Amino acid sequence: MKKYLITGCCGFVAKYFVELLRSEGGAEIVGVDIPQRCVLEAEDFRYERMNLTERHDIYRLLESFRPDYIVHLASVSSVADSWKAPVESFVNNTNIFLNIADGVRELKLNSRILSVGSSEEYGNRPVSDMPLREDYQLRPNNPYSVARVSQELISKLYADSFGVDIVMTRSFNHIGPSQRDVFVVPSFVKQLVEIKRCGGGVMKTGDISIVRDFLDVRDVVKAYHKILLSGAKGEVYNVCSGEGVSLESVICEISSILEVKPRVELDPSRVRPADNAVIIGDNSKLVSTLGWKRSYSLNETLRDMVAFAQEQV
Amino acid sequence: MKKYLITGCCGFVAKYFVELLRSEGGAEIVGVDIPQRCVLEAEDFRYERMNLTERHDIYRLLESFRPDYIVHLASVSSVADSWKAPVESFVNNTNIFLNIADGVRELKLNSRILSVGSSEEYGNRPVSDMPLREDYQLRPNNPYSVARVSQELISKLYADSFGVDIVMTRSFNHIGPSQRDVFVVPSFVKQLVEIKRCGGGVMKTGDISIVRDFLDVRDVVKAYHKILLSGAKGEVYNVCSGEGVSLESVICEISSILEVKPRVELDPSRVRPADNAVIIGDNSKLVSTLGWKRSYSLNETLRDMVAFAQEQV
Repeated sequence: MKKYLITGCCGFVAKYFVELLRSEGGAEIVGVDIPQRCVLEAEDFRYERMNLTERHDIYRLLESFRPDYIVHLASVSSVADSWKAPVESFVNNTNIFLNIADGVRELKLNSRILSVGSSEEYGNRPVSDMPLREDYQLRPNNPYSVARVSQELISKLYADSFGVDIVMTRSFNHIGPSQRDVFVVPSFVKQLVEIKRCGGGVMKTGDISIVRDFLDVRDVVKAYHKILLSGAKGEVYNVCSGEGVSLESVICEISSILEVKPRVELDPSRVRPADNAVIIGDNSKLVSTLGWKRSYSLNETLRDMVAFAQEQV
Repeated sequence: MKKYLITGCCGFVAKYFVELLRSEGGAEIVGVDIPQRCVLEAEDFRYERMNLTERHDIYRLLESFRPDYIVHLASVSSVADSWKAPVESFVNNTNIFLNIADGVRELKLNSRILSVGSSEEYGNRPVSDMPLREDYQLRPNNPYSVARVSQELISKLYADSFGVDIVMTRSFNHIGPSQRDVFVVPSFVKQLVEIKRCGGGVMKTGDISIVRDFLDVRDVVKAYHKILLSGAKGEVYNVCSGEGVSLESVICEISSILEVKPRVELDPSRVRPADNAVIIGDNSKLVSTLGWKRSYSLNETLRDMVAFAQEQV
């Protein structure tokens, strides 16, 4: 039995990570998060409500549970929200990670920690710089990405100097069934499912010419698991498809799955002026050193998202 | 009357900064720090005891005082201590700065902030990289320097994206009368003054072959004042002498001032294994763009330090 501590366990990614662990068997899981209850609770999964800014609470849990693996998914991950509440974004990304890493150091645990970062850390880069490689200099340009780069500096320090066993990611956009529709692709799916149901209608979007690197959440958690089990200590891995897709072609693909022909209207309130035109990651480190490979094509992911959204209606 | 808010006002640098302001006149000062009392209190200087990790306390003060200038000297600046208490080092450097910067943003103040950083941010660099220039990539490799780099990322973000008026430094070793003898040069001075007084004795040191860039604290505060008044928003300035001096030659110089011939003994507990052999800064940005120049030679500074230490005996 391997012991896993999963932070942010009520979130989108954690749900799929736990699913993966359960499919493989042999895991004892403790999940922590903020809400009153967690739907994942079961014989192999104990939920503890906890605010990770409370350093002594997480120390106590680390000391009693002594996890083999810590999957640190807790995060305030919205860039838009980070502009409105930069201190909250920093504290709930950087400081909570620091509390965990320092707990492991202080208690001299052998836990291996997965520190999740973001493609946002690369900052604004011209199209000619794509795909983004791990050895690029980081240029964080929003509060969220500053917090993530600080987290990475801490990860590197704790791994290299304190000998804490930490592996890191820079994760690109992930999508999949049950993702909240504050994110762009599920919002498209929801609107188009509605248009299908009503036999027509108008779709509201931001700038759909922008290109992003989307990866199915089930491929993301497979990558996280591989990095956790076999990644090199102190190393950072891009987690991405390696493929750039415009939002326009995402709309086309969903529309073709649903057999609808939506009218698309630009909603200026959804346009973010400082957005990168193109973000594509290079996943060759993950692929060549850890043997990870993508299982879900974009079309398969979108089909599953459409099916999920149709069940919700 | 210009209003100055000085954090860490009970410290070594603040004392000289306030002396400089008083010599120029026209400043209304509020100082904040942790101790019960501050010796600088006077008609032009109001002391407020405050823990800057308490965000709402600093917000309240910013709102009522509305400073023209914020000289942020509060810091837990010991690298050695940061290894023992990394979370404290991070919180009391990075987070307290974030609280101040965010208060200024939130309250839409026009305060200009001086964000003090450290030469430690450059990390380990070979001798061939000297002198260290502002455009070098930062490679923080201890908890203190990780905290300072994070502070600099926040400074840059708040200046460039939120429009908060922040200027930054990377400050090298500073020395001067009244500096605490936990630091290397005042510890040499203290030991040698004692040897002079006793007519002989043994001096204990760490590795005295290492080379550092020492600047008189009075030249440091002159640089800070110039950067504060005329530095370019969002820019970072090395504050240093531009000159490398070995600890051995510092000992020689103090010995010659005191006319003593000490026996020097290596104390292995004072040797820090990961120390850089040589750290020298490039001050040409400060000199050429702001017209700063050094007033105190190393010899003059050491004479003043010796005189101060002799008064203390």
